[in-house]
Amino acid sequence: MKKIYVIGIGPGKKEGLTIEAKDALIESDVLCGYTVYVDLVKDYCPKKTIISTGMTKEIERCHAALKEAVEGNTVAMVCSGDAGVFGMAGLIYQLSEDYEPVEIVPVAGVTAALSGGAVLGAPLTHDFAVISLSDLLTPWDLIETRLRGAGMGDFCTVIYNPASKKRADYLLKACDILMEKKSPDTICGYVRNIGREGQEHKILTLKELREEKLDMFCTVFIGNKDTKIIKEKMVTPRGYEKRM
Amino acid sequence: MKKIYVIGIGPGKKEGLTIEAKDALIESDVLCGYTVYVDLVKDYCPKKTIISTGMTKEIERCHAALKEAVEGNTVAMVCSGDAGVFGMAGLIYQLSEDYEPVEIVPVAGVTAALSGGAVLGAPLTHDFAVISLSDLLTPWDLIETRLRGAGMGDFCTVIYNPASKKRADYLLKACDILMEKKSPDTICGYVRNIGREGQEHKILTLKELREEKLDMFCTVFIGNKDTKIIKEKMVTPRGYEKRM
Repeated sequence: MKKIYVIGIGPGKKEGLTIEAKDALIESDVLCGYTVYVDLVKDYCPKKTIISTGMTKEIERCHAALKEAVEGNTVAMVCSGDAGVFGMAGLIYQLSEDYEPVEIVPVAGVTAALSGGAVLGAPLTHDFAVISLSDLLTPWDLIETRLRGAGMGDFCTVIYNPASKKRADYLLKACDILMEKKSPDTICGYVRNIGREGQEHKILTLKELREEKLDMFCTVFIGNKDTKIIKEKMVTPRGYEKRM
Repeated sequence: MKKIYVIGIGPGKKEGLTIEAKDALIESDVLCGYTVYVDLVKDYCPKKTIISTGMTKEIERCHAALKEAVEGNTVAMVCSGDAGVFGMAGLIYQLSEDYEPVEIVPVAGVTAALSGGAVLGAPLTHDFAVISLSDLLTPWDLIETRLRGAGMGDFCTVIYNPASKKRADYLLKACDILMEKKSPDTICGYVRNIGREGQEHKILTLKELREEKLDMFCTVFIGNKDTKIIKEKMVTPRGYEKRM
């Protein structure tokens, strides 16, 4: 059967790939993905038939990958982070219904919640939620409902796509919704360009985060009521204190 | 400065490690962790001073790792999945306050939400929450609050530690709480022994999941209102339908 690997390549640096992801890239005939991600891993694809497309061209990219697979090629479709988390695995399954049978093999990768968490310390040692603020594909009222659910449950909350030029005030709105339930002094952090050149991070409170000007290269972490700063790192305790 | 790598080794199979995690293991003098995880990676640690302890001995294990680092060794503390997600990174930071300065370097890994998601298909293509049902360190009423928040936000929800011998009915209780807001026909799935011998999975509805007898080696996935089955896989759409 023809095969498409949908591969999460992790945060960006080559060492962030899993061994399984690297092996799948090496095995593939065709490398497919958003231009920036293709450039990060193309050295691993020896035959180097490359299909790269710009941002927002996800549907075209997945059709191209499925056509290559139907023609008998082993295809590597690369995504940043994980193959599933806001990645291409879902869309490949959906579109595959219109094609001859193709084996789809998602290869998991380190999503920004984990790679960014490691930069900040240990913000996700307890229950957490991941929410994207992008309303390109999701109505804003559903995003608000999710933020309210995260606030109500006092989840550690990771925000993907916190802002873009068109959505300059979305993070501010999100912080206001979270502050309906969470303290303005909740410990938060963000990381810009995780695992890439120019990586930087900052730890701050929720009310300070509200005023911060971030961009689409940032991942944001909002703590729960127990999250604290230890040695300049953001740490959410699991609850071992009770045993100490 | 002395150094402790806190390393997420992924789901279990060796190919699930990141290249960064493998490199950190090779560099380390001392390997420290729960016996099962230590056995999975010990071939990578050439010098093989091994400190392995049983389950629930997390505090002792972290003290041992910190002592080794203070004595001048490079230590690898291994966790399954990610170093942060219910992992040892948080506890190492907390306990490090009582020791001489030690450099703590979390190395992210593929947590079960991602590796299990890849087995089931693409269940986490939209906003999601991760909740542990273990009440060893967390009061059950907080777990209920989190489940209600996840239900209210219609999050795709990943459940870690869904059951143990002492907590046989916790998954049933969790399903009942989620069904206050989610349909009993919500598409769900679970994976047992992700990435290890005996891996198996099942896709079913939320009301069927409620009756399932699971164990601590299972990770459970509950879809959102749009999650569906495509070619026997669990797929949560991102919302590209609007563009098609």
